[in-house]
Amino acid sequence: MAEISGAMPEGAHGGNIYKASKLYGIERGKFLDYSANINPLGLPYSLKELLKEELDNLVNYPDPECTELRQEISGYLGVGEDCVIIGNGASEVVFLLFDLLRLRRVLVPAPTFTEYAKAAQAYGTEVEYFELKEEENFRLDVSRLLSNMGAGIDAVFLCNPNNPTSTLVSKPDLLELLKHAAKRNIFVFIDEAFIEMTPDANQNSMVEFLSGYKNLFIVRAFTKIFAIPGLRLGYGLGDRELVKKMWERKLPWSVNSLACSMGKVLRTEKDYMEKTRAWIREEKQWFYNELRKLGKFKVFEPQTNFMLLKILVDGLNAPKLKHSMAVKGVLIRDAGNFKFLNDKFFRIAIKDRESNIRFLRVLNEVLEEIES
Amino acid sequence: MAEISGAMPEGAHGGNIYKASKLYGIERGKFLDYSANINPLGLPYSLKELLKEELDNLVNYPDPECTELRQEISGYLGVGEDCVIIGNGASEVVFLLFDLLRLRRVLVPAPTFTEYAKAAQAYGTEVEYFELKEEENFRLDVSRLLSNMGAGIDAVFLCNPNNPTSTLVSKPDLLELLKHAAKRNIFVFIDEAFIEMTPDANQNSMVEFLSGYKNLFIVRAFTKIFAIPGLRLGYGLGDRELVKKMWERKLPWSVNSLACSMGKVLRTEKDYMEKTRAWIREEKQWFYNELRKLGKFKVFEPQTNFMLLKILVDGLNAPKLKHSMAVKGVLIRDAGNFKFLNDKFFRIAIKDRESNIRFLRVLNEVLEEIES
Repeated sequence: MAEISGAMPEGAHGGNIYKASKLYGIERGKFLDYSANINPLGLPYSLKELLKEELDNLVNYPDPECTELRQEISGYLGVGEDCVIIGNGASEVVFLLFDLLRLRRVLVPAPTFTEYAKAAQAYGTEVEYFELKEEENFRLDVSRLLSNMGAGIDAVFLCNPNNPTSTLVSKPDLLELLKHAAKRNIFVFIDEAFIEMTPDANQNSMVEFLSGYKNLFIVRAFTKIFAIPGLRLGYGLGDRELVKKMWERKLPWSVNSLACSMGKVLRTEKDYMEKTRAWIREEKQWFYNELRKLGKFKVFEPQTNFMLLKILVDGLNAPKLKHSMAVKGVLIRDAGNFKFLNDKFFRIAIKDRESNIRFLRVLNEVLEEIES
Repeated sequence: MAEISGAMPEGAHGGNIYKASKLYGIERGKFLDYSANINPLGLPYSLKELLKEELDNLVNYPDPECTELRQEISGYLGVGEDCVIIGNGASEVVFLLFDLLRLRRVLVPAPTFTEYAKAAQAYGTEVEYFELKEEENFRLDVSRLLSNMGAGIDAVFLCNPNNPTSTLVSKPDLLELLKHAAKRNIFVFIDEAFIEMTPDANQNSMVEFLSGYKNLFIVRAFTKIFAIPGLRLGYGLGDRELVKKMWERKLPWSVNSLACSMGKVLRTEKDYMEKTRAWIREEKQWFYNELRKLGKFKVFEPQTNFMLLKILVDGLNAPKLKHSMAVKGVLIRDAGNFKFLNDKFFRIAIKDRESNIRFLRVLNEVLEEIES
């Protein structure tokens, strides 16, 4: 099979079990995939039943305006229906935004999700990185960010909680940023893809400020919380004039009819979301402590369902650790391609206790092999 | 509910059963939808079973390179795997093409599918229309087209068989066009979305000329033949260098994991495809004859699974006919927004005999009401 080099290099993102399966000769379903940050509780049962029913509706084109879905999101978050754009994953929303805004220069605190820079590049937008410092545990210092928001900047792109650092910026800090940015006509983009996986969920969201700040745009997805990265469903929330232009510009029917039908789970699966957060509250603390105890890693305290680690063992790096664990059926995310990180960093999901125990066992085996 | 005006006006395409349902107060599933050109045999049974199984795989990201799917298409059509780009419907492929080629001016025989012009407009490409004449039954006269291929043209965009006219250009004619275009460095785009629904299917395709002509690009979809417009799955076939650039440029994971898993039906559903064509061969002739017998329409002879008609009754036009049929639960496609057509034209699908009989009965009722 010809490789599409450049399309998406192996390891450019987590979750490519297809390449991993080929590379390590292990069946797809057999991997314990810690490289993608998906809710380990899996698809809610009712959602799978809903999707089964919706298979009969595949003979019809999807609703190009995703009317029901927008209504449900509107009800869920208390925003106007005309402030909601639906996308083929959050990616389509981000790309649409760059296409429409034609920004000259954006400020991106990093390390962060690499797709903002990729989208910027695709539309001729310059990216200026603002370094999140390891010695500050990658926490975003908003005062320092504001003093770096130079004259040429017309937007700030943030991920909150941030991927891969699992850090969360507080609402007062974000509000300060938003106010300063508004005064200077700077657009503020916040990716809240993981916010529902933080213990306080929507309490951490900036959604309530959408009506007061036209310069605020929020991106979200069904991907992580409902464990459906394969379905492709994301959305954006912003100023209605901008959102209208996005609808006009977007690819027709880019959201498939199964994805279109998902809105109601925001109402019917409140318990599932609560259960998810109860699990995270407990499990992330336990897993974090267990990993620290090993004494081989600097473990950055997670605010959501994944964790960043730095290898402290001489002679071991992330590519080597990744390979050693993959041959034993466990995938981790080498974080070396994130800006300002290096080959000592890797990212892992937080899963259910049983999986986390298996992860720790495999990790210990690998560490022993390397040291012997 | 706020309307997203401009996003996709009602009637801009066929198949918007969501708006129709709201407009006419009829449940979605109750419509007989003649406005969309989908295989009336529906999803093959094995495909639905396959999709059910694949629901468990939604917890994983789709394969961003659609490796298996490309292999299957390669085997099905005898083209190299690296000449295949997969898209979120054919639309994504068309938009990607305009994005990458940055054409100055394209020649588009019309009436035709309106998305080529929409994509052209989105990327600043001028569209010059070449009129297909009603008095020639909208057949494409390639000699006349060649003499209209002026110096400023850098691509020709064709749909074959053409939507909405249901006309098919012969392979010798297309080859003549291709040769002339190659000499003058003109790109030839052929949309074969309906080719598998013509009685001779892939025999009518230009796929065999891909290896000899770098200026040829073909777009196809799973949508029509497998009756899955809701799933979003199209593909493009072209020069490997161009295809490589398309993979690099495209939205990551834009093809969902259910769509990604569909490749094998090209092998396992050969009988279904044959059955489909046997039905079309018979039914389109019968339905065409029945509609002609009414004496109220000029019926353009169909080459594939839909038909264009012109109303010959004074005082009746397509919007009025559409409304009158919709309230009786039958949707037709008002073809008035296609370039060079007017409010006397409408397009209908060809379905199974039972549905076609019901269609004729409703049409007769409406005609009687109007005349009385």
